[in-house]
Amino acid sequence: MKKIGVVDTTFARVDMADYAVRALKSRGTGFKVLRETVPGIKDLPVACRRLFLEGADLCLALGMPGKAEYDKTCAHEASLALLFAAVLEAKPVVECFVFEGEASGPKELHALARRRAEEHALNAYALLFRPRDLARNAGGGLRQGFPDVGAVRRTR
Amino acid sequence: MKKIGVVDTTFARVDMADYAVRALKSRGTGFKVLRETVPGIKDLPVACRRLFLEGADLCLALGMPGKAEYDKTCAHEASLALLFAAVLEAKPVVECFVFEGEASGPKELHALARRRAEEHALNAYALLFRPRDLARNAGGGLRQGFPDVGAVRRTR
Amino acid sequence: MKKIGVVDTTFARVDMADYAVRALKSRGTGFKVLRETVPGIKDLPVACRRLFLEGADLCLALGMPGKAEYDKTCAHEASLALLFAAVLEAKPVVECFVFEGEASGPKELHALARRRAEEHALNAYALLFRPRDLARNAGGGLRQGFPDVGAVRRTR
Amino acid sequence: MKKIGVVDTTFARVDMADYAVRALKSRGTGFKVLRETVPGIKDLPVACRRLFLEGADLCLALGMPGKAEYDKTCAHEASLALLFAAVLEAKPVVECFVFEGEASGPKELHALARRRAEEHALNAYALLFRPRDLARNAGGGLRQGFPDVGAVRRTR
Amino acid sequence: MKKIGVVDTTFARVDMADYAVRALKSRGTGFKVLRETVPGIKDLPVACRRLFLEGADLCLALGMPGKAEYDKTCAHEASLALLFAAVLEAKPVVECFVFEGEASGPKELHALARRRAEEHALNAYALLFRPRDLARNAGGGLRQGFPDVGAVRRTR
Repeated sequence: MKKIGVVDTTFARVDMADYAVRALKSRGTGFKVLRETVPGIKDLPVACRRLFLEGADLCLALGMPGKAEYDKTCAHEASLALLFAAVLEAKPVVECFVFEGEASGPKELHALARRRAEEHALNAYALLFRPRDLARNAGGGLRQGFPDVGAVRRTR
Repeated sequence: MKKIGVVDTTFARVDMADYAVRALKSRGTGFKVLRETVPGIKDLPVACRRLFLEGADLCLALGMPGKAEYDKTCAHEASLALLFAAVLEAKPVVECFVFEGEASGPKELHALARRRAEEHALNAYALLFRPRDLARNAGGGLRQGFPDVGAVRRTR
Repeated sequence: MKKIGVVDTTFARVDMADYAVRALKSRGTGFKVLRETVPGIKDLPVACRRLFLEGADLCLALGMPGKAEYDKTCAHEASLALLFAAVLEAKPVVECFVFEGEASGPKELHALARRRAEEHALNAYALLFRPRDLARNAGGGLRQGFPDVGAVRRTR
Repeated sequence: MKKIGVVDTTFARVDMADYAVRALKSRGTGFKVLRETVPGIKDLPVACRRLFLEGADLCLALGMPGKAEYDKTCAHEASLALLFAAVLEAKPVVECFVFEGEASGPKELHALARRRAEEHALNAYALLFRPRDLARNAGGGLRQGFPDVGAVRRTR
Repeated sequence: MKKIGVVDTTFARVDMADYAVRALKSRGTGFKVLRETVPGIKDLPVACRRLFLEGADLCLALGMPGKAEYDKTCAHEASLALLFAAVLEAKPVVECFVFEGEASGPKELHALARRRAEEHALNAYALLFRPRDLARNAGGGLRQGFPDVGAVRRTR
């Protein structure tokens, strides 16, 4: 049975992992979830690598960087290390970050974080179990958390 | 027989991989294409590494980052990880990114993405099968997607 | 018995490691502390890796970058290398940096550095011994050094 | 016999490798040159690593990034990956980049690219065969492509 | 007997390695110095790794980036690769960079480069032979090349 690592943080202000796991389970049953919570986004990469060593086939890394300029730097560092962990292990890490500044208020932030977590979880599911669903949407202008923008046509 | 990995995304708004594969096939027949589609550009590096482990001799990584400042950061991170995967495996990754902001409208974006995908695909072919074609154009000022700028001469 | 590496610098202006070790010891007794001091934050990553090779299960890396723009670059470089060391060893590195510019004066800087060192030390303890404490606070909006901001609710 | 890898690009607008190889050969005969041309600067790192695996003792990586801001990002990424390849293989990569914006016109660009390619080639030669030539100029303020600035003295 | 690698560049405008080696020797005799000079700061990381493979227990990497914006990028790249080499080998690299723009004139530049080289050399010595000297100054606000700023107190 496949194993999906789901890692989130105590820094985030929405329980994104909860929505992600529900979304995963809404799709099927052929997998086991390995859950872990770390303090912040810089703790996600090593947690993913550890879950890979425990047998995870894919990790979903959920985080919510703050609004300050320094938070963007931290997110950049965390992203690079998530990429490093994924390439090193040759297993996918689906990064799902929501920046506080992306939403206009707490309610919008909650809704955005939920939708994005769910949609990245479905992408994770597709990567493991339904690669053809992704292939069918190649170049389709899909988005996570916001409406899809769609493909551009050869002529307007 | 050589194997060429071709990876693209559902985030992109043009089916660049389709044009790339056609361009590859227009050149010859001594290779097999391994196709894969992932959600976004940050998922490309691990997909390349996995295709290398499945026997690919070269990977073509196609992506279309959005217009926002953050999209540039994501593209930078993805590029670094593509370079890491290539050096780690000692096999070429031909990166083909088209930024939405490079074109003035949807029609121009489609044309640019198509041309660049085709021209990077021909470069990929040359790297594997016709290294002398590249050597002959050393310092030739070639471009992909836009017109070649040509070499500069010693005297004007 | 678990081993916790605690590394700090002579560049910092507050003895953060002292506060961190006291906080760790206030929590329990099932671990041994491996202490080391290096000149600056760029010396932390290799010190962590060396402590991992000596048996540390987790490292706490404490540093205090200066106010200048160049200090931010150094902190960024150090952070990336701390992440690299952690992923390479598959063991957590808890980074605890305090930027001089974060506080309005020496007294505030001292208080901030102390609180953040203590709170990151408690996070380190939780990662090793109380993962459920972290899981219970997933998405809880916790902060280190400043007051927690809390979770955002679905409706205001 | 030592082997020197020389890699350049079809993107560059001057055949820098040609000048580099002539400069190398003007110095001596105890080496063999392994030539390769790739499309752009991001293709240089993996080419260097492949030449190292084929026996190169040092690689000279020649490239000419364009004028746009994005070209600087690409050069930065390529540089990091060249450094990664060099450290990984424990063999020197001499990077020789000329930015189009460094010169005021085509003639000046050609002259700069030629001089810099030649001077980096001589550095490559010195690294392999004449380390004492470098040691003698430690702290000497040498430059490649532009006039040397010289050492600063204790007193003016 | 311990071995200390000392690497500098022909790009620098002060013979920092000379001052560094004198400072090291002023401290004791239980070590051997492995000297090497490379063209520029980007050549330092691989030189350090090679000296580690030849038996160095620590490397001191001395460089002097120029004043231009691009020089800062080069220094950043070199720093990241020095950190990579150090973590990979699990041996310390003490980076000692002096930026030309840090000093108001040639005389000041010379004095700054000398002091910083000497003080980083003493740090290198302490890392290998006198770790307690560093531990005693944890959080002490020490600086290299400029006067120490000292610790901040709990109350003013």
